[in-house]
Amino acid sequence: MGKSNRRARTQAPDFVADNGLINRRALLEQSIALAGVGVAGTITAAAAEPLKDEPWSLEFGSIMPPRQMPSRFEKDVVRTLSNPTGEFRNSHARTPHQLLNGTVTPNELHFSINHAGVPDIDPAKHKLVIHGMVRQPLEFTLETLSRYPLVTRMAFVECAGNSAPMFSNEPLQVAAQAIHGLVSNAEWSGVPLSTLLDEAGIDPNAKWLVAEGADAQFLDRSVPVKKAYDDALIAIYQNGEHLMPGNGYPMRLLLPGYQGNMNVKFLRRLKAIDQPAMTYFETKNYSQVLPGGRTWRFHFLMEVKSFITFPSFGHSLKEPGFYTISGVAYSGTGRIAKVMVSADGGKSWGEAALQGPIHDKAFTRFVMPWRWDGRPAILQSRAWDEAGNAQPLRAEFVAARGETKRPVTSPLLFPNQHYNSITRWGIDSKGGIKHVYA
Amino acid sequence: MGKSNRRARTQAPDFVADNGLINRRALLEQSIALAGVGVAGTITAAAAEPLKDEPWSLEFGSIMPPRQMPSRFEKDVVRTLSNPTGEFRNSHARTPHQLLNGTVTPNELHFSINHAGVPDIDPAKHKLVIHGMVRQPLEFTLETLSRYPLVTRMAFVECAGNSAPMFSNEPLQVAAQAIHGLVSNAEWSGVPLSTLLDEAGIDPNAKWLVAEGADAQFLDRSVPVKKAYDDALIAIYQNGEHLMPGNGYPMRLLLPGYQGNMNVKFLRRLKAIDQPAMTYFETKNYSQVLPGGRTWRFHFLMEVKSFITFPSFGHSLKEPGFYTISGVAYSGTGRIAKVMVSADGGKSWGEAALQGPIHDKAFTRFVMPWRWDGRPAILQSRAWDEAGNAQPLRAEFVAARGETKRPVTSPLLFPNQHYNSITRWGIDSKGGIKHVYA
Repeated sequence: MGKSNRRARTQAPDFVADNGLINRRALLEQSIALAGVGVAGTITAAAAEPLKDEPWSLEFGSIMPPRQMPSRFEKDVVRTLSNPTGEFRNSHARTPHQLLNGTVTPNELHFSINHAGVPDIDPAKHKLVIHGMVRQPLEFTLETLSRYPLVTRMAFVECAGNSAPMFSNEPLQVAAQAIHGLVSNAEWSGVPLSTLLDEAGIDPNAKWLVAEGADAQFLDRSVPVKKAYDDALIAIYQNGEHLMPGNGYPMRLLLPGYQGNMNVKFLRRLKAIDQPAMTYFETKNYSQVLPGGRTWRFHFLMEVKSFITFPSFGHSLKEPGFYTISGVAYSGTGRIAKVMVSADGGKSWGEAALQGPIHDKAFTRFVMPWRWDGRPAILQSRAWDEAGNAQPLRAEFVAARGETKRPVTSPLLFPNQHYNSITRWGIDSKGGIKHVYA
Repeated sequence: MGKSNRRARTQAPDFVADNGLINRRALLEQSIALAGVGVAGTITAAAAEPLKDEPWSLEFGSIMPPRQMPSRFEKDVVRTLSNPTGEFRNSHARTPHQLLNGTVTPNELHFSINHAGVPDIDPAKHKLVIHGMVRQPLEFTLETLSRYPLVTRMAFVECAGNSAPMFSNEPLQVAAQAIHGLVSNAEWSGVPLSTLLDEAGIDPNAKWLVAEGADAQFLDRSVPVKKAYDDALIAIYQNGEHLMPGNGYPMRLLLPGYQGNMNVKFLRRLKAIDQPAMTYFETKNYSQVLPGGRTWRFHFLMEVKSFITFPSFGHSLKEPGFYTISGVAYSGTGRIAKVMVSADGGKSWGEAALQGPIHDKAFTRFVMPWRWDGRPAILQSRAWDEAGNAQPLRAEFVAARGETKRPVTSPLLFPNQHYNSITRWGIDSKGGIKHVYA
């Protein structure tokens, strides 16, 4: 056995950029094996017959449970918690992107932020009220909402504060989960909010809805009626089953592409009004501080973004050879149009392959075949959406939006939201991986 | 409050078939509210301010766990088990379709059949060998497979014996889970098998692969090389995370559209040969018995099928009014083209709305708006795929494929596989629901 140079027979890969990036056409033409991919071990025919039996092949296995769980060998594939003991403050659970693939985030691993813990809501008693500037106030239960025609769609949800560590003026040595773990992607099923507003007879002069949750914070946000009529849902299913308690059970507002905090969970009321309510999260907390002390208000849209999930901090490359660079891209504006990848710190770029179908305002997985020659490399990705928006380079992003000098004394005085610039992973000659800025 | 006739203002629905089926264009035009949908309760403006606070609004909630779980109020949303005590025989865990929506089956609820329990496989020790009629035998680990460019796609997996209760000559009074629970749908990520066969240099005379699992049954099946080159994957992720132990951890064969048993789990070898191996599951067990005693061998493809998940056995309609009939459709041949729904036992039909995007060999959710007038109704769905295959009507299906007289003494002597005809739910005047044939 061995992984030597037995593939001298294969032709040289069609490199598309420096430092080993291979033309994605190798994937389309199913000729990737010809591109010198081979990472399998060779064996002799005799070694394959009979195969050696491992212990699990020799004994009857365990009983299947009503709800199955991952293997015990996957125990590290969990969310990381900012408040594991339930102190009287907010809490964050972050998705382990560096350990996942595809585009769906399993419900168990969907990120969650709660400001007053996870409420234990009885769905038979929970109600959603639509009132204010409407002809007829209405109330809905989970049962009545379930009788409407549901719409099913993929959508990411991202906290405005996701990637906040990237505002630091030094690259923090942490995994993608710690940096980008406050975004997840799921298939949501729910009732178009437009249907319910039509039924209530919303006043044409009502331009905003105040959405309020039923948890002990009564989290409330002002939502433009225009967005409500565009693509907002009252979501009641997440990847096929009812919502997770941490994601809004039994019902939440889903505003595809808008910052997570506005997708109000445990939704109990929508009040139609003629101006924004200026709630807590619309004053200090969610107004982006810009260089010079100005702020952006009502900055709802999560901009085009991408990051590499493999290889990334926490992984290591054990030998030179073929690898697949893989990551996710998404945009609150619409579909992803293109993702470019660089392995030389941005000097040259190659276009990644996108795995279809490409959904509106949802994760798109990109893959880039790569031959690592064992020398230091800097990997990064950059996405474009169908409207032509490009993920900004870090220098231009920092100039426009600021950065935060370490150590941080009071994060609220510094820019910490809507980071959508580039993440770079530096590979050293031993295959070790660090978070780098340049 | 009340749900009276306050919607006299709304126009009459555009009925598209008898017994209350409403034209799906009402959904497309977002005018469903005008179609007399309203099922919400009306309230007075005063009742909405202030809202009554429920207990969960008045206290700090629970701590978020690393892997979140469904609400305790969802405890019935589980798989049903055929062998809950782990007797020394096979075991089935069925998906609760009547309680789900959308198209993704959560990993925890994906169906599973195991013949020797669930093996506890160490992914660092598991290997996949490709040998037989190849130029160079190869072996792969989870780590090396993960370095190849993965493909991500939606696909259903269905046991050939799914829906076997429908061969009974009497309709069994059980839920969709008991009848159709051996099919599920997920996003799978894996390596195209063609890539690995190219790398091993498969002999052009090799027409079949014997796929063998590493569990104690060493389940093995013969797979056409043609299918392997068409769209087969060695799947290593399921809805974004590594496979569930009951679904093949750490790697399985995925043959989109082919009967579940061939999608060999815990895959440890693929041996290229020039004729089928005639394994256990290719002799008696998976050869469909036809009327007259003939059998079909190598009947791999799961044919076009659909069933209504709501309303269905186990639900009840509490009052006349608007409901949404909803279900899933899928075909091993390709995409779903059309689903027709009838509410009058098949005398008249209306076309359901399909929720896009429509994936190849994967679940498509259909919805049909319906005004139930309180009289008895018989609901059923019928699907067509893009190749023009129609889901057969029951009379024609039974004539061609047989049925089984109750009580069944030895199921293996009777037809019990590849049922893809229609399922009917009979609604009585009180809203009770039974499984009916006519």
